[in-house]
Amino acid sequence: MNMLQLIEKKRDGGILTPEEIAFFVSGVTDQSLPDYQISAFLMAVLFQGMTDEETTELTLCMSRSGQICDLSEIPGTKVDKHSTGGVGDKVTPILLPIISSFGVPCVKLSGRGLGFTGGTIDKFESISGFNCSVSPSEFKAKIDTCGMLLGGQTADLAPADKFLYALRDVTGTVPSIPLIASSIMSKKIAGGADAIVLDVTCGNGAFMKDVESARELARRMIAIGKLAGKPVCCVMSSMVQPLGHMVGNVLEMMEVVEVLSGKGPDDVKEVVLTMAAEMLKMTDAGKGKSSEELKSRCLEKLKNGEAFNKFGDLILSQGGKLHSDGTPVFVDQPFEVMTVHAEKDGYVETCDALEVGEASCLLGAGRMKKEDSIDMGAGIKLHKKIGDKVSRGEELYTLYTGTHSPVSEDRIDEALLKMGKAYSISSSPVNAPSEILDVIS
Amino acid sequence: MNMLQLIEKKRDGGILTPEEIAFFVSGVTDQSLPDYQISAFLMAVLFQGMTDEETTELTLCMSRSGQICDLSEIPGTKVDKHSTGGVGDKVTPILLPIISSFGVPCVKLSGRGLGFTGGTIDKFESISGFNCSVSPSEFKAKIDTCGMLLGGQTADLAPADKFLYALRDVTGTVPSIPLIASSIMSKKIAGGADAIVLDVTCGNGAFMKDVESARELARRMIAIGKLAGKPVCCVMSSMVQPLGHMVGNVLEMMEVVEVLSGKGPDDVKEVVLTMAAEMLKMTDAGKGKSSEELKSRCLEKLKNGEAFNKFGDLILSQGGKLHSDGTPVFVDQPFEVMTVHAEKDGYVETCDALEVGEASCLLGAGRMKKEDSIDMGAGIKLHKKIGDKVSRGEELYTLYTGTHSPVSEDRIDEALLKMGKAYSISSSPVNAPSEILDVIS
Repeated sequence: MNMLQLIEKKRDGGILTPEEIAFFVSGVTDQSLPDYQISAFLMAVLFQGMTDEETTELTLCMSRSGQICDLSEIPGTKVDKHSTGGVGDKVTPILLPIISSFGVPCVKLSGRGLGFTGGTIDKFESISGFNCSVSPSEFKAKIDTCGMLLGGQTADLAPADKFLYALRDVTGTVPSIPLIASSIMSKKIAGGADAIVLDVTCGNGAFMKDVESARELARRMIAIGKLAGKPVCCVMSSMVQPLGHMVGNVLEMMEVVEVLSGKGPDDVKEVVLTMAAEMLKMTDAGKGKSSEELKSRCLEKLKNGEAFNKFGDLILSQGGKLHSDGTPVFVDQPFEVMTVHAEKDGYVETCDALEVGEASCLLGAGRMKKEDSIDMGAGIKLHKKIGDKVSRGEELYTLYTGTHSPVSEDRIDEALLKMGKAYSISSSPVNAPSEILDVIS
Repeated sequence: MNMLQLIEKKRDGGILTPEEIAFFVSGVTDQSLPDYQISAFLMAVLFQGMTDEETTELTLCMSRSGQICDLSEIPGTKVDKHSTGGVGDKVTPILLPIISSFGVPCVKLSGRGLGFTGGTIDKFESISGFNCSVSPSEFKAKIDTCGMLLGGQTADLAPADKFLYALRDVTGTVPSIPLIASSIMSKKIAGGADAIVLDVTCGNGAFMKDVESARELARRMIAIGKLAGKPVCCVMSSMVQPLGHMVGNVLEMMEVVEVLSGKGPDDVKEVVLTMAAEMLKMTDAGKGKSSEELKSRCLEKLKNGEAFNKFGDLILSQGGKLHSDGTPVFVDQPFEVMTVHAEKDGYVETCDALEVGEASCLLGAGRMKKEDSIDMGAGIKLHKKIGDKVSRGEELYTLYTGTHSPVSEDRIDEALLKMGKAYSISSSPVNAPSEILDVIS
């Protein structure tokens, strides 16, 4: 077996055997295969696709390419969640405390943000002292004391995926559904999950721009789960506009606190409660119950303060600081740069998630390159979202930077330009988009 | 402009601008682009194709990536020829002397063989003393004394093509018609030709296995020629069986001498005369004359010994040795290993060029890897070809090695196995295939 034959086979539409896929992943992991053959192969996969069996084999080989988290010491079904990414996506920090308040152990391994999509680790690190470096040997102790933990993905987890992702990023081979599906699933499986709930975002501010490809990605990951013996549920959610009103690290965590206090925007709650219900269904806590019943029980946890208290426990467990009222101490405060007002009466027709995400990134809230640092206080508050009625002169959005990190005038101008493109106002009424497009498993 | 954008554009079926193609070729030439991006791009081209304009731009940029032979000091139209490769292809050593005997200057830059296809340089080097290293500065003097020259392609000629070809070879991106067409044409244009006649071979022993893809390749190269202002004519010839009866370096040159002496097999003569007529048509010597008239004038040059004498001039001009009868002195003699006889009466139905080429390579006549040396005396004589009547016990083919280079029993067995697959004998009469499939320009 050699790599050229594998490239040619895939190029000509052939189906690779498990041995061939194992050969490929092992050559990626031990770096015996040259990059140029790997990238040609990835491009051939992009054009010719992979069957569910090939994708599952690729997923499993990648998940076994490094360390696998062994969560067997922790009792019960360990359900992991993952989002395919979006703008203003603050679901995890609300979801974990809710699930944990049912006595279900939560081990969540998250990533950092790159480009216009934020990363959960970055958001938690906007809390003073919060430490995401939890080694697998500490997992059991953290679960015993607090019931949940939030860790960063270690370099040892699915290293083949890490390598392939880096190469895909620079060779135009990112948007291949089998490659995306296997990348996500390999990390979840290596993370030790028994069952997985995925938030498959869809729209301009997501990886998947249209519903068909989002649905195909969801179908793929469910198929991999079936073949790999790990139940998978996909919640398809809209990312045509940012989730909630806040975009940026501290800003989003402020909105998290609001939702955990029983307030906050409906769209965030809808996604959180839908995800929570599906996660609970996969555990003893929710088995056999309807989604509606579970959603209302979860909403109760937001209203009665249980989830809020759990959130505090998580912060303290990982070294973070709380004010006396139980809210987190942030490393910085958002500093208002400018508020833009509506120029005419009407209804918000678009609030493009990609433009908002990029504008927020320009203000310092995200990384352009991996090595960039983040301005935790930076971001954007959206006073109005799609469907909202707006009057001339009303506040539309506010730009923020951190207190000590003013950005250049040029960057602010660029961000304003993007925000101008993001918003459009129609004279006739506009329906707010549905947040949940579908739930499939 | 960056390479990732170019990959994505081509991946999504976009048409690259001349600036984008120039950026790509310059990054290949100065090695500023990483291999993995180049190979991903090549695979995207393989799937999405290129327009004639893109292919021409790629060709011209590659032709300008190194030295360009300036043949302007040599008077008249300089017509170059090229074959897309085959087994037993001994056209060039016969064609050059014929063309030269009309007073047309011939500068032919050739390559070495790799795999089952032979290389013209290797064939000439089977003549004692023959030296193919002719630098462009010597071209004029050689043409003045002998009227023709045969040189090797220098590393300076279209280096971007050299690099891309090496990468295509190991990344499964060889069989892309725009890439093949631009590779061939870039070298011909950098070689300084005013007009080009191409022998586009077609069949199992050629690069193009079927007539449709051979025709598409021919169409492409003609289109490039039109856009680049270099007239191109394509002779489409069959490569379902080897050309002539001899395969191997010394063996083929022996057949060359036969044809130049007015004898030799009809199929070789047919290809040579067709190519010669098309080349002459592009010069003052043949302008306005019909192909038939030019072919018969060329045949006359074979019969009256003029071409034979010219062949001797070429050999002497490049340091080669001749016997007193004007035939070349070879570096070695073929040593007969074994002759295989027909096992039944019938008609030869197949004499597969690929199998014969690979068998000959196994005997030492070709290179498996670039660094292999060649056994000049090795090869195969085909006593019978497709359509020939054969009686049980009659000689079918003979295997040869060089005098001093016996190959292992294993290799001979392997060669015999391939020859067994090459030949099949039918009980009913079989038509000999047409040698020339089409002539297009």
